[in-house]
Amino acid sequence: MSALASGGPAFVALGGGHGLSATLSALRLMSDQLTAVVTVADDGGSSGRLRDELGVLPPGDLRMALAALCDDSEWGRTWRDVLQHRFSSSGDLDRHAVGNLLIVALWELLGDTVEGLDWVAKLLGARGRVLPMAAVPLEIEADVDKGDGVTCVVRGQSAVAVVGERITQVRLVPEAPPACPEAVAAVESADWVVLGPGSWFTSVLPHLLVPELAAALHRTSARRVVVLNLEPDAGETDGMRAEDYIDVLRRHAPDLRVDAVVADPGAVEDVSVLVERTRAIGARLLLRQVGSSDGSARHDPLRLAAALRDVVDGFLGDVGTRTADA
Amino acid sequence: MSALASGGPAFVALGGGHGLSATLSALRLMSDQLTAVVTVADDGGSSGRLRDELGVLPPGDLRMALAALCDDSEWGRTWRDVLQHRFSSSGDLDRHAVGNLLIVALWELLGDTVEGLDWVAKLLGARGRVLPMAAVPLEIEADVDKGDGVTCVVRGQSAVAVVGERITQVRLVPEAPPACPEAVAAVESADWVVLGPGSWFTSVLPHLLVPELAAALHRTSARRVVVLNLEPDAGETDGMRAEDYIDVLRRHAPDLRVDAVVADPGAVEDVSVLVERTRAIGARLLLRQVGSSDGSARHDPLRLAAALRDVVDGFLGDVGTRTADA
Repeated sequence: MSALASGGPAFVALGGGHGLSATLSALRLMSDQLTAVVTVADDGGSSGRLRDELGVLPPGDLRMALAALCDDSEWGRTWRDVLQHRFSSSGDLDRHAVGNLLIVALWELLGDTVEGLDWVAKLLGARGRVLPMAAVPLEIEADVDKGDGVTCVVRGQSAVAVVGERITQVRLVPEAPPACPEAVAAVESADWVVLGPGSWFTSVLPHLLVPELAAALHRTSARRVVVLNLEPDAGETDGMRAEDYIDVLRRHAPDLRVDAVVADPGAVEDVSVLVERTRAIGARLLLRQVGSSDGSARHDPLRLAAALRDVVDGFLGDVGTRTADA
Repeated sequence: MSALASGGPAFVALGGGHGLSATLSALRLMSDQLTAVVTVADDGGSSGRLRDELGVLPPGDLRMALAALCDDSEWGRTWRDVLQHRFSSSGDLDRHAVGNLLIVALWELLGDTVEGLDWVAKLLGARGRVLPMAAVPLEIEADVDKGDGVTCVVRGQSAVAVVGERITQVRLVPEAPPACPEAVAAVESADWVVLGPGSWFTSVLPHLLVPELAAALHRTSARRVVVLNLEPDAGETDGMRAEDYIDVLRRHAPDLRVDAVVADPGAVEDVSVLVERTRAIGARLLLRQVGSSDGSARHDPLRLAAALRDVVDGFLGDVGTRTADA
């Protein structure tokens, strides 16, 4: 792990949607060296329509990550609110998020994905950088266990997210997409990489299916943290227990070593099972109340920041005494 | 006329479209105290669709004016280019200008027209302020002379602009719309107000049909300058000569006194007629080459700035010797 820089350790957070927003909201309290690496497989809503109409990367998860990093000033908050604003009408613009349109316009104008995102980051005074996990739009394909030995294939992120049956495996289409080189470089030079929380099959695991990004995640000298979800996503991970998330991760990336797993005690049915599975991937388990107190099943940024700070502190001393925190 | 402020005289430019953009591009070379007061009667293109779908003021002419005032830096030019960018597709977004969508989003978010425009001005580092001429969306209605004593009525800016026959009179619907109070105040406290160039019936004259704005234009102690067009607009002012623009202005605002008229010699068929009509509204005539050298019938910002500087200088001395410039 590289020495900590003055602006805090260099974090790379990988995910998408609300889960990634929560991680970024937490990490921005701890460091100025943040990079978000974001899924680009969305095919629903405003992003799906833009992808279909203009042939671009789906911008929605990128927009949400940028919004989470906005500067906490009148300027930053106003432009964040503009980016997050959705039109509401009975016409063509209904449900389009303004930030999606702005990001796509910058891409068309500048002809460069990363440069366009960097301009939006500058507009927001963002504390960090937001990058796509792949250089091309992706589709997600899932094997779904229908019972009695029958497996069927569901394609498309929005379809997979509401499949309502047990997903055993996800794949990307195209199968081996090119990574975003800046994202690979960020993972390689990070002090910490954070995977999750978020829709496990459609926002978290896809990063491990982009070959160059997966290789960087295996090879980096950064510490790896996995943040587990607070409850199953209706439709995508129904009935999954805390330890099942680890098993699924292992199935998709058998050789990935993890340093720490953060879970909320309220989301763990059997602590001893989770401790065992966590040890199997080389990780310490940190049990902390990280859920929001509003009962929304979303992570509370301050609580998550405190938990991640404990993770970092635990490895700074690196005496191993915190392993048995659970 | 109030004393000149350190940032140059306070100018208010009234118009719409490319004509107003040319004036603003010229004036920004002369002053930091600029206010654009912009027509809000457009019912075609991206603006017309937004107006129909979301019930907002048509943003297109406001966007163009803001773009003309952008700061001449990488930041200002990039955001200007983003605002002016139009999507191109076979779908819902085709031909929508990104700046129109951004302005409308700010209006919806902030609930205040002027505040929304001020935020876009801040984004662009704009040298000046852009305001609508009225607080509500307008329609333009024109009386068209069909010959043989037959007059018909054409409604809608985009229809009027291509009517192809002689327009005798334009009206607004609603007939007496509320002005934008900030626009009235800007006219009242200006050193100079500039009317034209631009589509005469659909972008220039409408300002004189908003009662409170017209009253302010009559009452202000500012000097009034009229900049004539370089050639007739195909469809709207076919066959009109330079002096006809003055006549039409007089018909719509008989009591308006004008201090100076700027015309390009190439657009004047009979100088003596134009001098006479100019004197009839109390104005001096300044003949200057203000057209672009690319033959586009658009005003060249630098040449127009030089001409307007001459106008201002002529009145600073105020010795009256430049009246016979023509």
